[in-house]
Amino acid sequence: MKAGMYYGIKDVRLEDLPKPAAGKNDVVIKVVSAGICGTDVHAYLHNGDPVGIHSGNQFGHEFVGQVVECGENVKDISAGMRVTINPTARIPLGRGLNSTEIADMSGAFSEYVLVEEAKMGWNVFQLPDSLPFEKAVLTEPLSVSTHGVNCAGLSGGEKALVYGAGTIGLCAIAALQNKGVSQIIVSDINDGRLAMAKELGAIPFNSKNGSLPDFVKAQFGTVKGNSDEDCIDAGVVIDCAGVGSVISEFMDNAKTLSKLIVIAVHGANVELSPYWLLAKEVSLIGSRGYTPADIQDAIAALARPGCRLPAIITARYPHGDFVKAMAKAAEPSSIKVAVDYE
Amino acid sequence: MKAGMYYGIKDVRLEDLPKPAAGKNDVVIKVVSAGICGTDVHAYLHNGDPVGIHSGNQFGHEFVGQVVECGENVKDISAGMRVTINPTARIPLGRGLNSTEIADMSGAFSEYVLVEEAKMGWNVFQLPDSLPFEKAVLTEPLSVSTHGVNCAGLSGGEKALVYGAGTIGLCAIAALQNKGVSQIIVSDINDGRLAMAKELGAIPFNSKNGSLPDFVKAQFGTVKGNSDEDCIDAGVVIDCAGVGSVISEFMDNAKTLSKLIVIAVHGANVELSPYWLLAKEVSLIGSRGYTPADIQDAIAALARPGCRLPAIITARYPHGDFVKAMAKAAEPSSIKVAVDYE
Repeated sequence: MKAGMYYGIKDVRLEDLPKPAAGKNDVVIKVVSAGICGTDVHAYLHNGDPVGIHSGNQFGHEFVGQVVECGENVKDISAGMRVTINPTARIPLGRGLNSTEIADMSGAFSEYVLVEEAKMGWNVFQLPDSLPFEKAVLTEPLSVSTHGVNCAGLSGGEKALVYGAGTIGLCAIAALQNKGVSQIIVSDINDGRLAMAKELGAIPFNSKNGSLPDFVKAQFGTVKGNSDEDCIDAGVVIDCAGVGSVISEFMDNAKTLSKLIVIAVHGANVELSPYWLLAKEVSLIGSRGYTPADIQDAIAALARPGCRLPAIITARYPHGDFVKAMAKAAEPSSIKVAVDYE
Repeated sequence: MKAGMYYGIKDVRLEDLPKPAAGKNDVVIKVVSAGICGTDVHAYLHNGDPVGIHSGNQFGHEFVGQVVECGENVKDISAGMRVTINPTARIPLGRGLNSTEIADMSGAFSEYVLVEEAKMGWNVFQLPDSLPFEKAVLTEPLSVSTHGVNCAGLSGGEKALVYGAGTIGLCAIAALQNKGVSQIIVSDINDGRLAMAKELGAIPFNSKNGSLPDFVKAQFGTVKGNSDEDCIDAGVVIDCAGVGSVISEFMDNAKTLSKLIVIAVHGANVELSPYWLLAKEVSLIGSRGYTPADIQDAIAALARPGCRLPAIITARYPHGDFVKAMAKAAEPSSIKVAVDYE
């Protein structure tokens, strides 16, 4: 089979590898469409090792495809099923790989992927017939954002603020809409990404152009906090930006019982007032990865009529042009680049 | 009626005030037992204004009693009922008092308390016949701790770590036990309070004597975190101490998906790593006050056979000795001091 391999900075190749074979408890999936993740781009531009993509290995972890082979013990999955996987649960732990490496070396950029110890609803997920592969390829990044939204335990009717209009921030819009949240402000400093946020149904704000809290107050109105302060009327704030000012801006403006979900990777520490955490009754919640339930939610969100998320796929390449697809994904104007197999 | 009044530092008095009368929507409660809160002690020793206790006013907000008068519109409360109240919902907001002042000037140290706009299950709560007043007087502080525990959304079987063995930390033991948590470590630097924690069924640790994380690991065992680090096996950590090291110690040792509930008032900011919040999938949750559901939980916890919490009442005084009771409550060796009315 043709396999997308990582060798180092700007060095990815399509090579011939043996097609994997299913053991008794395994399935083999023929990949139909794959997405290039920010992690893959980081490896491509900088260094794969910190993100679990090592030289000489297959990589890619966002994909959908069709089951072509099932081990004899696998009862709940059958050949021909249209599926996606949970790459973080792809093979059992304990082989010297951490969960990041396991996910990031799944081999989404190869024609066939082996899923060991395959179990429907744990590491393999069936796609509804109504959801075409070219949309379903967004399941994995949408699962990341869905996990963040689910961590907030929304009770309905909330308004939301999302920091960052990259893939995860844009997916957060769809994840919020899937939970009935329709009033969403998205902040970024890139007008192209903000235009995409608007296309998905959010209210965009370029934080270069003024005070985001003031904008949110003007759009959503204010509510009084426990200390009679004016707070932004957003029940959930999702950090897909990873800059320290997100935390301080949240603490300064958050309303009673609101939650900040941190999905973005921060590079620096911040100063926090535990007093205001208490006085405002707010929560800071770290969101990492996703659960099987989140994946099911993400599939349902993509299958929802009117889901506009597939607009974030700004380019598609055939698998034979995988190397070009990687270069394209690394361009700043790209959002999501997909690789389609014949 | 005899009313406990606040005039300033070490200046509290029993004075004669007119007995309150119930309006159409109100009830009057004859106080049977009251508790002296840390807030009351703070006002007594330092200054009442920051905690909502102003000179020349009644104070105290922890009490139980019997309804003696009901307004004609009050249908769900009747004279003779044994009750406690939600002091934070005692009178409608919007009379120039904030919720802290409303609570702290309830008048628990007076013979009769007026509850305006009385509504069962909102600002008035019935006590079960099986729960004597002398135990029920702990409902309010236990509600504070119960709110913290309920913020954690425990799923059962967790082990817990509590920082601080003051009244709220000790009440947290009972609140946790009421939710089925039996393995609880309590840390403090006061051996007397730790002895009380042990009496309530917790494992005490004096953090002057070594490393608390090491002790917790030895008692509860360790679990691996997402980055293969050794974590303490506590699903919930409750901060009733209010020192910055609690936050950093939690971030350094917390296991995946565990939660730090901040009930204590911190005086200083701390440094926080949003990266580790994400990488460990942990939450920092500010807990303030309580809801009607928390109060119901606290009443149920106190009524539970085997609830040992009333042991924290280290002294009881008749109402006529209210001034002595305040002085006693201000002694460092006191935990909870109760005032009993004839």
